[in-house]
Amino acid sequence: MPGIEIERKFLVDRLPDALPAGQRIEQGYLAVADDGVEVRIRRRDGAATLTIKSGPAQVRTEEELAIDPRRFASLWPLTEGRRLTKTRHVVPLPDGLAAELDVYHDDHDGLLVAEVEFPSLDASEHFAAPDWLGPEVTGDARYANQQLALRGVPAPRR
Amino acid sequence: MPGIEIERKFLVDRLPDALPAGQRIEQGYLAVADDGVEVRIRRRDGAATLTIKSGPAQVRTEEELAIDPRRFASLWPLTEGRRLTKTRHVVPLPDGLAAELDVYHDDHDGLLVAEVEFPSLDASEHFAAPDWLGPEVTGDARYANQQLALRGVPAPRR
Repeated sequence: MPGIEIERKFLVDRLPDALPAGQRIEQGYLAVADDGVEVRIRRRDGAATLTIKSGPAQVRTEEELAIDPRRFASLWPLTEGRRLTKTRHVVPLPDGLAAELDVYHDDHDGLLVAEVEFPSLDASEHFAAPDWLGPEVTGDARYANQQLALRGVPAPRR
Repeated sequence: MPGIEIERKFLVDRLPDALPAGQRIEQGYLAVADDGVEVRIRRRDGAATLTIKSGPAQVRTEEELAIDPRRFASLWPLTEGRRLTKTRHVVPLPDGLAAELDVYHDDHDGLLVAEVEFPSLDASEHFAAPDWLGPEVTGDARYANQQLALRGVPAPRR
């Protein structure tokens, strides 16, 4: 199924013992429309992009434009109050899999989220999660980056 | 005062007798944030742009990026319900001035707005408006393009 991503998302109970070096990601939302259309800028490893994504009820559209450092610096202040900063560590897992482990900073300090992408539905269903992974939050909108940036870290469930 | 634009905006009572050919402008808002940051796309004379503007309480920022026709076509559906289409006629006025007369279409059919830019505050204050110009709406947020696109034509004042 080309274009379909099979991913599962988990909270992380503790950092794994061998944590590879990470890459810092700064991400801010210029604007999010009522119907969920979002426009964000992101800087990662010195490269900056502006990305537009459709809302949940629309045909899925995503467009990414490279922007130069001057533009990023000019636009960043416009994302005030709608930002997140995280360090992404790519942690190898058995069976050729990998977890993208995001360690959030600043307003989201303490939040650890990992995402694993699978080559097939079968691989996804038979995934043996390592013990450092916590509760699954796949599909939980509160942990989408847009919501984290706009609303902060969700209150713990009881 | 570099960077300061001195402009006055008017409703238009009737089209002037000699109306130069106009240029069609299609403009749609991808998203507008609560603080007024807006991201819009615009197509005019075959050229498309994506523009980000700061909100009213922020230091004024405006960044414009050229986008190719494929990107415009991909993003246009995301502006559904937040669009305006108009034909802009540039009408010469005495003293080297000109009015940008916008004839709105579709949802804004019937709306006519003209904007005149002046070389000095003095010229602005001594402007003798031609008789086809109607009530002044300079600074009236309801006639800003963002508000027209989001809320439609303002109800007539009584």
